[in-house]
Amino acid sequence: MYLEKINNPQDLKKIAKENLPKLAKEIREKIINDISKSGGHLASSLGIVDLTIALHFVLDAPKDKIIWDVGHQAYAHKILTERKDKFHTIRQYKGLSGFPKRSESEYDAFGAGHSSTAISAALGFAAARDLKNEKFKIAAVVGDGSMTGGLAFEGLQNAGHLKKDMLVILNDNEMFISQKVGAVAGYFAKLLTAGLVKKAQDKVMKTVSRFHGFGAPFNKLIKRVKVMLFPGMLFEEMGFTYIGPIQGHDVNNLITVFSNIKDMKGPILLHIITKKGKGYEPAEDNPTKFHGIGKFNSQTGEVLDEKKKTYTDIFADTLVRLARTNDKIAAITAAMPEGTGLDKFAREFPDRYFDAGIAEGHAVTFAAGMAACGMQPICAIYSTFMQRALDNIIHDVALQNLPVIFALDRAGIVGEDGATHHGVFDLSYLKYIPNLIIMSPADGNELQHMLKTAFNSNKPCVIRYPRGAVCGAQLDGVASVLQIGKAKVLKEGGDICLLAIGVQAELCLQAAEILKNKNINASVINMRFLKPLDEEMILNTLSKTKNFITVEENALSGGFGESIKSFLSNASAKIESIGIPDKFIEHGNAGCIRDKYGISAQNIADAAIKMLK
Amino acid sequence: MYLEKINNPQDLKKIAKENLPKLAKEIREKIINDISKSGGHLASSLGIVDLTIALHFVLDAPKDKIIWDVGHQAYAHKILTERKDKFHTIRQYKGLSGFPKRSESEYDAFGAGHSSTAISAALGFAAARDLKNEKFKIAAVVGDGSMTGGLAFEGLQNAGHLKKDMLVILNDNEMFISQKVGAVAGYFAKLLTAGLVKKAQDKVMKTVSRFHGFGAPFNKLIKRVKVMLFPGMLFEEMGFTYIGPIQGHDVNNLITVFSNIKDMKGPILLHIITKKGKGYEPAEDNPTKFHGIGKFNSQTGEVLDEKKKTYTDIFADTLVRLARTNDKIAAITAAMPEGTGLDKFAREFPDRYFDAGIAEGHAVTFAAGMAACGMQPICAIYSTFMQRALDNIIHDVALQNLPVIFALDRAGIVGEDGATHHGVFDLSYLKYIPNLIIMSPADGNELQHMLKTAFNSNKPCVIRYPRGAVCGAQLDGVASVLQIGKAKVLKEGGDICLLAIGVQAELCLQAAEILKNKNINASVINMRFLKPLDEEMILNTLSKTKNFITVEENALSGGFGESIKSFLSNASAKIESIGIPDKFIEHGNAGCIRDKYGISAQNIADAAIKMLK
Repeated sequence: MYLEKINNPQDLKKIAKENLPKLAKEIREKIINDISKSGGHLASSLGIVDLTIALHFVLDAPKDKIIWDVGHQAYAHKILTERKDKFHTIRQYKGLSGFPKRSESEYDAFGAGHSSTAISAALGFAAARDLKNEKFKIAAVVGDGSMTGGLAFEGLQNAGHLKKDMLVILNDNEMFISQKVGAVAGYFAKLLTAGLVKKAQDKVMKTVSRFHGFGAPFNKLIKRVKVMLFPGMLFEEMGFTYIGPIQGHDVNNLITVFSNIKDMKGPILLHIITKKGKGYEPAEDNPTKFHGIGKFNSQTGEVLDEKKKTYTDIFADTLVRLARTNDKIAAITAAMPEGTGLDKFAREFPDRYFDAGIAEGHAVTFAAGMAACGMQPICAIYSTFMQRALDNIIHDVALQNLPVIFALDRAGIVGEDGATHHGVFDLSYLKYIPNLIIMSPADGNELQHMLKTAFNSNKPCVIRYPRGAVCGAQLDGVASVLQIGKAKVLKEGGDICLLAIGVQAELCLQAAEILKNKNINASVINMRFLKPLDEEMILNTLSKTKNFITVEENALSGGFGESIKSFLSNASAKIESIGIPDKFIEHGNAGCIRDKYGISAQNIADAAIKMLK
Repeated sequence: MYLEKINNPQDLKKIAKENLPKLAKEIREKIINDISKSGGHLASSLGIVDLTIALHFVLDAPKDKIIWDVGHQAYAHKILTERKDKFHTIRQYKGLSGFPKRSESEYDAFGAGHSSTAISAALGFAAARDLKNEKFKIAAVVGDGSMTGGLAFEGLQNAGHLKKDMLVILNDNEMFISQKVGAVAGYFAKLLTAGLVKKAQDKVMKTVSRFHGFGAPFNKLIKRVKVMLFPGMLFEEMGFTYIGPIQGHDVNNLITVFSNIKDMKGPILLHIITKKGKGYEPAEDNPTKFHGIGKFNSQTGEVLDEKKKTYTDIFADTLVRLARTNDKIAAITAAMPEGTGLDKFAREFPDRYFDAGIAEGHAVTFAAGMAACGMQPICAIYSTFMQRALDNIIHDVALQNLPVIFALDRAGIVGEDGATHHGVFDLSYLKYIPNLIIMSPADGNELQHMLKTAFNSNKPCVIRYPRGAVCGAQLDGVASVLQIGKAKVLKEGGDICLLAIGVQAELCLQAAEILKNKNINASVINMRFLKPLDEEMILNTLSKTKNFITVEENALSGGFGESIKSFLSNASAKIESIGIPDKFIEHGNAGCIRDKYGISAQNIADAAIKMLK
């Protein structure tokens, strides 16, 4: 057992090199074992164990800075940097974060959870280091998927210009290649073949050069051959020195390469080929399933969680059904077909399905272009990732009043992924945008109606819905059109009014039951629309009671509750708002987090009782 | 006079080709003459007159779609597409927009005002066209500056993958090259030389290929030669067919080229070299001055507007002064050194000055990296453009509580640039972000104190300030530190309280004067901080009056007024809010727009009188 002897990277350096492959095996076993009990991002972390060992073996962290893009691949890094003993607590409440986190460890130079930030951050470190006349190495580890994000390109080109000493490791795990997303991915695929053709380079080049002057077809051939012959030209042209591609699972070879290049000057791009899920057959065979996974049987790879119908499922099924009779519908994902459920749509309507890559901004502006040309595109993007397309929503969609639909999955508390992934800001970052219609369903059935309503409106619409299993009502056979801006009374009552946006309507109904036992008669309103707000309904209610409680799973600041308070500011009403406080919310089981922040029927009931006292 | 005969592109096609250069001259004269009276984006539009004529000569708009990136270069396009007679109204209230605008003309296929959107939008058009089995051409005209934005890269790579028929015209006006921003710009510079080396290609390649195997120095040489030999490889590698570079001021040659390539299949990138300000010597000599300019003497190029001290000036002067005694300060612009005033900083502290290119997201994440490494970076970015970096602010800065300062210039109504440029959303899109301190100065003097306060806090801070001349107080000799979260009473009074955030405090003082004449004694509070909000001050005030009017130059939805209403929701206070309503605000003289939307002393006074009746 080599892992036993390692607490930090200094200990790692004491292991004899020939034993490092055994250490890699032990780390993989620990990751598989622990994650099988907690769930997590398994496949990416397994793929990068050897690379992580080699990097820590050669570099001198925490003095040297390793910056993990997205960060879900950093499990081996955590294990090697003083967090081995806590690793089994990962992603659990008060346990280790599933992502690098500055406040968790000095070895986590820069936190992440969203994609494509590492090159920009690494360049910031490099610029600061040089201004302060400090000496240390900087390595950013970036997946090929992250490289499709425009932010990575912005970072690359600025790094190429500033010429700071820094290493970008392109961790090319073939995920994006297999999915054929984007030209850059195709480009990586071409690079893979480069090793094979290297020897033939001179000879082929000599041959094709003879065809110059033979006209267009030959020139085209020559261009293709050039691309094949000169791997890394894209990065070279951005100002990087390109090295690779090299195989990423021979830890000792990686150490040799890292040692050779660590003192090289200027920005270096090292291209490493790894296999997602490496060392665990079920994950190697199905890396998408094991990308982010719940608890599973580590022997068989079988997922243990019972499969329940989710909001994502209802979204996906409804969209497919609507698209069968509406050929204007096109669906766009930002590299998450499975997560958003659009894989179903893609199978039935491959021509109307578009994967933009990890490029939310492009996804939205592309949708705006389609809408300007008469289509009805829908962008299915998680609430937290839609933050990356704010200007595209404002400037390209809303300002032009184009009928793009935004399906915001994972709105509200997401649980174990934590602060980088909770979708608790979308109502606030969208509410003030003119022309938008913003809605949130109280249950799965309403989700299908809202989708239908959105396409029927032919206006820019947002539908936000949560992660996880559907609560509530059975599904109607047919999706129908809701009246835009009309709330729905779920329960009448004159003592107090509970107003909810989204699935918290169910909590309000439960709270009303609790209150009934205290002889308090609460009305419950499912607002359905944050925008336009059903002002008439609220004024009607005001004639019955002056006591209101608003409930939302969004930041209270700028959210639903504030809209209600603002609307009723001169009405002498008493209003309390339940929602997310002004802080970043930690990771942990979603139910546990909700309880902590009072998103519960009991807390709503307690607030009502307090108000009526 | 050829322009006389042209109302639309069909008329243009009737002009004999040999007369088109004369037409170009007439269009330039019209642009110079009209813009000298109204102000506008002169240099870019002059640079692209020949290209615009050629494009409309060959294509068949509005059936064919021309999409202008940023859009400030589209003046000749407007003149040629049924807007010649209204062109003199450009940028004026109820006049033509300074940017392409779908609601203004069917020839404006896609509106813009922000950079780097055209390729994504064009690809959306192409995808929709093919799904609908329609037949038309699509051309996106993109400047080299716009090409530094990550969104353009996302668009390019997705276009390269989807292989739709579309033309991207890279309008390379050398602006970015002369300013040496980013590796891609340098790459364009290399391409310029390509014409010269083309003939030598075979020969040189043969020669260098002999050196293969001679080790590192030779390999490096070979790489450099390759880059020089194969222009456009970057685009070829993205899946585009690259053509160029060609000279962009020979209108007949451009027509030949466009005619030759218009039926080519797949995505084409045509690289055209133009000169900003072409045909107008003062603008050719100083394209930066004539990028966006006020009224000027068309004979001499002399600017007519009196130069007044602006908030930008005070920001720039203060920052330079603070940086002299604080070597942790670094300043970052997204390609707008003059607009933000950072050119002053750049001259005195070239090592601590960074231009990220038109890449706001990277600018912010780069700043986060610097801050994580102990620096105190400041990002000076216009309010409207900061929308492009929302996720970077949330995920990279605020979540990690890093001391990055955001200087949001052009907050509020900007006037003639209109809906794409008004900075009326920032309070709403920032307010709910945990850890941020958000402030706005009441006058120029307070701006310098707030800058000092921000650096002193060592926390993530936002300072928003408006476009234009400074109002109010003289500047103190030294910038001092304000107490964070403390408002300032400007005037005591018991009848009503006027609460302002930012320079609207001055309007409130004027309103208080008007009210005094009506025997109403108003207090005026300069809130200074939206976050943290001075709740104590508001509660104190509540003991004197229950009547409040809030004033802000931001969307009312999610803004300052809502925060006050929310805080006082259970206080039985009467609160009216004055600010920007829930719609996109048109262009026009800022004073005129402010009057229209009630951001005026008289309207504040009227609201107070109404409330007290």
